[in-house]
Amino acid sequence: MSDLDKVLATIDADLDAALERLFATLRLKSISTDPAFAAETRACAEWHAADLAAIGFDASVRDTAGHPMVVGHHRAGDGPSVLFYGHYDVQPVDPIELWDNDPFAPKIVTRPDGTRMLVGRGTADDKGQLMTFVEACRAWKKVTGALPVPVTVLLEGEEESGGVNLPPFLDANLEELRADTALICDTNMWDAATPAITTSLRGLCGEEIIVRAADRDLHSGFYGSAAANPNHVLAKILADLHDADGRVTLAGFYDGVPELPAALRDSWAKLDFDADAFLGEVGLSVPAGETGRSVLEQTWSRPTAEVNGMGGGYQGAGFKTVIPAEAHAKVSFRLVFDQDPHKVRDAFRAHVRARIPADCTVEFHQHGSGTAVAFDTSGPVFQKTQGALTAEWGKDAAFVGGGGSIPVTTLIKQKLGVDVVMVGFGLADDRIHSPNEKYELTSFHKGIRSWARILAALAG
Amino acid sequence: MSDLDKVLATIDADLDAALERLFATLRLKSISTDPAFAAETRACAEWHAADLAAIGFDASVRDTAGHPMVVGHHRAGDGPSVLFYGHYDVQPVDPIELWDNDPFAPKIVTRPDGTRMLVGRGTADDKGQLMTFVEACRAWKKVTGALPVPVTVLLEGEEESGGVNLPPFLDANLEELRADTALICDTNMWDAATPAITTSLRGLCGEEIIVRAADRDLHSGFYGSAAANPNHVLAKILADLHDADGRVTLAGFYDGVPELPAALRDSWAKLDFDADAFLGEVGLSVPAGETGRSVLEQTWSRPTAEVNGMGGGYQGAGFKTVIPAEAHAKVSFRLVFDQDPHKVRDAFRAHVRARIPADCTVEFHQHGSGTAVAFDTSGPVFQKTQGALTAEWGKDAAFVGGGGSIPVTTLIKQKLGVDVVMVGFGLADDRIHSPNEKYELTSFHKGIRSWARILAALAG
Repeated sequence: MSDLDKVLATIDADLDAALERLFATLRLKSISTDPAFAAETRACAEWHAADLAAIGFDASVRDTAGHPMVVGHHRAGDGPSVLFYGHYDVQPVDPIELWDNDPFAPKIVTRPDGTRMLVGRGTADDKGQLMTFVEACRAWKKVTGALPVPVTVLLEGEEESGGVNLPPFLDANLEELRADTALICDTNMWDAATPAITTSLRGLCGEEIIVRAADRDLHSGFYGSAAANPNHVLAKILADLHDADGRVTLAGFYDGVPELPAALRDSWAKLDFDADAFLGEVGLSVPAGETGRSVLEQTWSRPTAEVNGMGGGYQGAGFKTVIPAEAHAKVSFRLVFDQDPHKVRDAFRAHVRARIPADCTVEFHQHGSGTAVAFDTSGPVFQKTQGALTAEWGKDAAFVGGGGSIPVTTLIKQKLGVDVVMVGFGLADDRIHSPNEKYELTSFHKGIRSWARILAALAG
Repeated sequence: MSDLDKVLATIDADLDAALERLFATLRLKSISTDPAFAAETRACAEWHAADLAAIGFDASVRDTAGHPMVVGHHRAGDGPSVLFYGHYDVQPVDPIELWDNDPFAPKIVTRPDGTRMLVGRGTADDKGQLMTFVEACRAWKKVTGALPVPVTVLLEGEEESGGVNLPPFLDANLEELRADTALICDTNMWDAATPAITTSLRGLCGEEIIVRAADRDLHSGFYGSAAANPNHVLAKILADLHDADGRVTLAGFYDGVPELPAALRDSWAKLDFDADAFLGEVGLSVPAGETGRSVLEQTWSRPTAEVNGMGGGYQGAGFKTVIPAEAHAKVSFRLVFDQDPHKVRDAFRAHVRARIPADCTVEFHQHGSGTAVAFDTSGPVFQKTQGALTAEWGKDAAFVGGGGSIPVTTLIKQKLGVDVVMVGFGLADDRIHSPNEKYELTSFHKGIRSWARILAALAG
């Protein structure tokens, strides 16, 4: 029996203990975007540092201007070194009334067909995913007393809230974090049976605006039509973001956005992507984006503008005839290829300012930015990872694009100058960022086994 | 010393006790639109019934399908009978953080110049106003043991929440409530020195819409642009309500809206209305409504569409890249002359439905409707009331238009067939429906004296 076989057997045998550890971190409310949870977010960082130390990592909680990082080193051994990145913070849980259970009381739910899922905030994004890697390391240590390659683990606490402290942290600790390859576990499988390596991601530019008019809320009977209404101003700003064909109207928005390269188009065409099923899974049927683009193009290779939140005036039960003093919106842009997030931000602000009438003012708040990223998959680490995944799942691992944004991927590529291999075991129906977030027990179990194999493959 | 002089002297002497009674009802959280306050709303009705009974009214709390009515009769005596209407319910208090004091702990605040104001929810709208009439009755009873004319008091508990139970209540109790004239105290003075009788009011049509798309909140990275975003759909619906000239775009909206009659235009021109001061008082400077219309026209004689509330997606601190499952808005239309609220509602719903794309649905909720109303001021009750007000304030009382909507005025006119004399002592800066609502102590004191004089005049 090879070491790898022993490690895989140990993973199978120790699964219940691994779940107990996962549930311990899931119970910690590490909602990074809400200052009310700052102390519990730190407690979660401390939990992960202690857990890594228990495996044998030289691990510590590292302060930043925001939530702390967790860094753990296990440098023994030869072979190409790896830097593993995950994030221990989670999304807010509202609307809380749509959760079937307490989001921070994780549980295993067995479906009628016998499959089991882990339910709770962070099961898929990203605690469940990051723990697949940590548990693989634990099993290697338990069986062999060592890891196949030198490993550094970096866990961020602000991935869901802009991550503004990650770039300076990387800059300040470049030598400490340097490795030959970076691994990230925060992406999806192609489908429940097919593992995937994500080789491109969209960038992100997030903006919040607050439009103000009168210095107080007004009675719409007395002031209606005479007084500027921030709700009207905001609606116009947001409605004008797209034209009738679903294209974003910002000046220069499509600069640096080429048509999809032929090779990538061919590769995607071979994927058995079912747009009807993708939309149908969430109760939709018609691609809402740019006219004439496929759903795969719309979500992987085309830039977007989405109003993630907006509000103004009375939103409670009943009715209140008020003209509010202010209205606000949160807007995010997903970027592709060479789009410059700073130029997009400037163009958005110009779009907004051009629609602010007399008597109104606008305030801008920046919420994160990152450029898109793509890797050449012909290099050895991608091939070795693909081989390990294929061995575990019995099906060829796919190279896929990703519609989301993982700014750290770009940062690591830029600052460390290495390839980033993104492997994750999430599924499209995991409801990350939504009520009733879940992660398949199979994803967790075979995810651990996958990383055990990948670590062995990278050493070879 | 005439009876009236004795009554006025009693009002002056008993002012502190009147304030104590007012504060007792102000402390009751009769927020009719929020079901959480149903019990306290009923307690407020009971307080008013007991207070009227203490004066000598045959008073009772009368159940409806919603919040109860309070009815009190004092039928002794000859002369033309009056029906007085006020409402004991109040607006919600959000945003609560903008209140300088607890909205339900009313207090008297003395300004540096020595003037005093009553601060708290309902001080001006409408508890402070309705109590001016009640206290005038109390003083007449105390001094003479009678009232100058037969009086019925009707206090509603749903004026701020649609008032759907008032029409059936009037229908069911027409004979009991019948009177020669109706009086309402829920309007403003022309300015702090000039009393006013409001002779026209705008009508109202309120609608709430909920736009839905996917069956759950989605991650904008995975689904962005492919999935319909209810925020985008709603923004378009609301932005399209007005054209570039500030006119409402609904089909047929201006049917039944003539240019202002010349006589009324002349009468309004004589008022020393200062549009700059009206807007400047709330931090504004430019009329935002229809191009080419004066502020007085915009707020008294032109119909409006105002988005009173809207929301969708993540509105908390920080950022959440979500595509929400739904977005909602509350929209009200102020109506003038012969505009039909039902036709306006139908036109709005058609406007909305025409902008609901594939994959989205919309749900409508009706929130009250009433037509505009206007009275001929040449009749004796208007002349007598004007004379009494002029005597109290030492300045000619003005006949003015009103931008707000008091549906009961139309109802009483239609169902009882009598003139409705609207006299109130509010000021434009009372911040009704807003944080830090206030009512001038002068308004309360001289308001009581004004009603004492009006009751005497109506008997003459």
